[in-house]
Amino acid sequence: MTANSAYSRLEDRFRRLSAVQGALSVLHWDSAAVMPAGGAEVRGEQIAALSLIAHEQITAPEIADLIEAAATEPLEPWPAANLSEIRRNWRHATAVPADLVEAIARQSHETELTWRSARAANDFASLAPRLQSLLDLVRQVAAAKAEAFGLSPYDALLDEYEAGGRSARIDQLFDELGAFLPDLRARVIERQNALPPALPVEGPFPVEAQRALAERILDVLQFDRAHGRLDVSHHPFTGGVPDDVRITTRYAEADFTRSLMGVIHETGHAQYERGLPKPWRGQPVGNARGMVLHESQSLLFEMQACRTPEFIAFLAPLVRSAFDRRGPAYEAANLQRVYHRVSPGLIRVDADEVCYPSHVILRYRLERAMIAGDLKVADLPGAWNEGMAALLGITPPSDADGCMQDIHWPGGSFGYFPTYTLGAMAAAQLFAAATAADGAILPGIAQGDFKPLLAWLRPHVHEKGSSQTTDEVLIGATGLPLGTAAFKAHLERRYLNG
Amino acid sequence: MTANSAYSRLEDRFRRLSAVQGALSVLHWDSAAVMPAGGAEVRGEQIAALSLIAHEQITAPEIADLIEAAATEPLEPWPAANLSEIRRNWRHATAVPADLVEAIARQSHETELTWRSARAANDFASLAPRLQSLLDLVRQVAAAKAEAFGLSPYDALLDEYEAGGRSARIDQLFDELGAFLPDLRARVIERQNALPPALPVEGPFPVEAQRALAERILDVLQFDRAHGRLDVSHHPFTGGVPDDVRITTRYAEADFTRSLMGVIHETGHAQYERGLPKPWRGQPVGNARGMVLHESQSLLFEMQACRTPEFIAFLAPLVRSAFDRRGPAYEAANLQRVYHRVSPGLIRVDADEVCYPSHVILRYRLERAMIAGDLKVADLPGAWNEGMAALLGITPPSDADGCMQDIHWPGGSFGYFPTYTLGAMAAAQLFAAATAADGAILPGIAQGDFKPLLAWLRPHVHEKGSSQTTDEVLIGATGLPLGTAAFKAHLERRYLNG
Repeated sequence: MTANSAYSRLEDRFRRLSAVQGALSVLHWDSAAVMPAGGAEVRGEQIAALSLIAHEQITAPEIADLIEAAATEPLEPWPAANLSEIRRNWRHATAVPADLVEAIARQSHETELTWRSARAANDFASLAPRLQSLLDLVRQVAAAKAEAFGLSPYDALLDEYEAGGRSARIDQLFDELGAFLPDLRARVIERQNALPPALPVEGPFPVEAQRALAERILDVLQFDRAHGRLDVSHHPFTGGVPDDVRITTRYAEADFTRSLMGVIHETGHAQYERGLPKPWRGQPVGNARGMVLHESQSLLFEMQACRTPEFIAFLAPLVRSAFDRRGPAYEAANLQRVYHRVSPGLIRVDADEVCYPSHVILRYRLERAMIAGDLKVADLPGAWNEGMAALLGITPPSDADGCMQDIHWPGGSFGYFPTYTLGAMAAAQLFAAATAADGAILPGIAQGDFKPLLAWLRPHVHEKGSSQTTDEVLIGATGLPLGTAAFKAHLERRYLNG
Repeated sequence: MTANSAYSRLEDRFRRLSAVQGALSVLHWDSAAVMPAGGAEVRGEQIAALSLIAHEQITAPEIADLIEAAATEPLEPWPAANLSEIRRNWRHATAVPADLVEAIARQSHETELTWRSARAANDFASLAPRLQSLLDLVRQVAAAKAEAFGLSPYDALLDEYEAGGRSARIDQLFDELGAFLPDLRARVIERQNALPPALPVEGPFPVEAQRALAERILDVLQFDRAHGRLDVSHHPFTGGVPDDVRITTRYAEADFTRSLMGVIHETGHAQYERGLPKPWRGQPVGNARGMVLHESQSLLFEMQACRTPEFIAFLAPLVRSAFDRRGPAYEAANLQRVYHRVSPGLIRVDADEVCYPSHVILRYRLERAMIAGDLKVADLPGAWNEGMAALLGITPPSDADGCMQDIHWPGGSFGYFPTYTLGAMAAAQLFAAATAADGAILPGIAQGDFKPLLAWLRPHVHEKGSSQTTDEVLIGATGLPLGTAAFKAHLERRYLNG
């Protein structure tokens, strides 16, 4: 392409847009990881201003003209895929008026801050009005996109997190899981109860020692410190940009096991970002494909690779050394029992692999009802508690450990939750294909060598960027589109036969 | 004013501009305090993009029209002062073409990063080509502004840091100091040599203990942790925005005294930012008046208040406790000898009050020559070393401790240096007026109570924002415009009679 082609000019525009989005990502990380509380108001103004600027950049009238003109230009496959992603992003942005974009950026920032204190105080009443106002704005966005795309409002939101994601297909996949999980869970728990229980792994585990162990594990997982860092935040996440990935965790002195796996989880996200195609930095086709593949990478690290007996055997002596502990509780066999324990609980992020999908199915149903207008925020605690009782047989004693436990809705993310379980399915499918394709991967993991695994993931997943659909990536890597079979087989193998 | 007046619309525009500038300030802090090295390239793109956006915002054609229209509207004094500052900022921005703004943002970012490694390796040759390229761009800016304002190129740069600052007046003030300092320095050193030397205060002082002491001093100085934080960076600075002030320091295990006073220095900057007029947040008139008053506040804390015998007597037991040290070296009398020691040295930021102005005079002369085109970067080391020999009688053994010691030029700041010594003069003038006006200030400092001092500074300096000129603020607070008398009297009192 010449430098003056419409396509080249679009690349310039989107490179600049990417810089603004990258700046926004740093501001979000800063808010969560280091910002003093009193900075919230002005930070909200900064985020709202940059969000509006990004929106103005992508909705500028010239963009529509350039997209139309570029469509007539001959393009190689990657530029063609980039143009397709440019168009997709542009359609999402132009569907929503600028004042709504600014309003929702401000409202979600404020609601998220309110959520922090409301959750700490178990005070749903203080969160509800702000969350309802935010939901009202989200529903306006959903309606606008639904009209523009000819989709249902919920699918229109979902499509932003997972291109081509549709609730009809999710219903089918979740129905398959829903039919499978209760019986599996009962059998796993029955089997578990017949065995001696895991010995308790009891704190305190000093935060400094946990941090040092986490840094050691980052090295094992090939986390590139020249291009990323680990910090602490209220809700763990992966932020930043591919060349400067910011992951966070939170430490509790009483328990190192959750934070440790949390760090591994975020490292999976970080490795996806780091592995995105370098020549396409700053272009839409160079971005992660969507949240399903993103979550597949975090869960591939956390659930597939790092809860294998092989990795836990590697991990056990590191744990003993980090906390200066001895005895049978810190042997690999017991740590594996801890990490493979299945027990319905209140908190999604602490849930085991078998129970986790039920948490997601609940949130998926509730957010669909909220977006459809069938569920008001004021009625959320009741609906939540009923759903928990039906799906997992437990009733939350508080909203803090119930419908207020997640940051997503207060942060304005509706349509995101199903990608967790779709990602778990993709992770099982990819890990099975990877270990089948390269016999060195599992022995590597057993020795703390993740290079063979990464060597397979880079070309098969990470370096695809957004040049293919999620299903195309999965078919290329595993031979099949997204399905439940590998995930179900994985759960049976680990929890019934492991 | 009605919401639709031209003035009101200008306020909206500048509020948004301020949000972008605040985001830039966070990105700069992040680069210096937490960013992994591999993030530099993409961060450069982010900073360049936001700098260009800010420039586009302020140079948009509507701004010129709105300024013209607002000038015909009846305005109260503060809005009128705000309009005047808006016009000043607009004139500075419109004088420079957009591509030059973007080029200089990128080049100064890259040069600053090169400087970090070049300084560490004492490798001026690796810095020189980048610094020369940056200087070429800065000279283009200076030429453009000079033409627009009818000023000399150097004064045109100076005016951005210090509104109304002119080298003719600086020459006069610096000549007065230049005539006074050599003799003073000789007398101080003669007197000092006749007294027993300060006992050495010898490390190691663990970084964690230094950090804890710094946090304790922040409390003493009324640093508001809900609106600010202290971190570590290569070159200490104050960044962020008034409601989220980020100060930094660097710790050396061998010596706590420099970092401690460095933290006090940055806290003075931070208090100025925090005290800026709250109703004018996000508007130009709500900004700090300029670098002379900014530096006056950091030096008022560091040099005027916290090197008094009263404060050092308060500080000494905190130092003993922080590092678990005893003995005569840690008594107030000896710490005062340490903090009042006069000795010509290589490094500006470590210089004592008596020698510091000579460091500034050297930089002022060199940067004027560079901007005038009379000094090439390649010739800077030689000119630097000659100047050091002439002004302070010492010759740097390396460029790292010579012309590469400061971040300013690699960061693109030319015209900034003189404000340090002008600030020192203003600090002496203000502290003399404050302690004369309120007899409770010094006894408060003796007890670690800075509320009386802040109670005077808030209305007399901080809350003026940019509603008055530097001289107007000084006349209102001290009865006189900026001069050398109070500074000279302070030096004589402390170093000849103290």
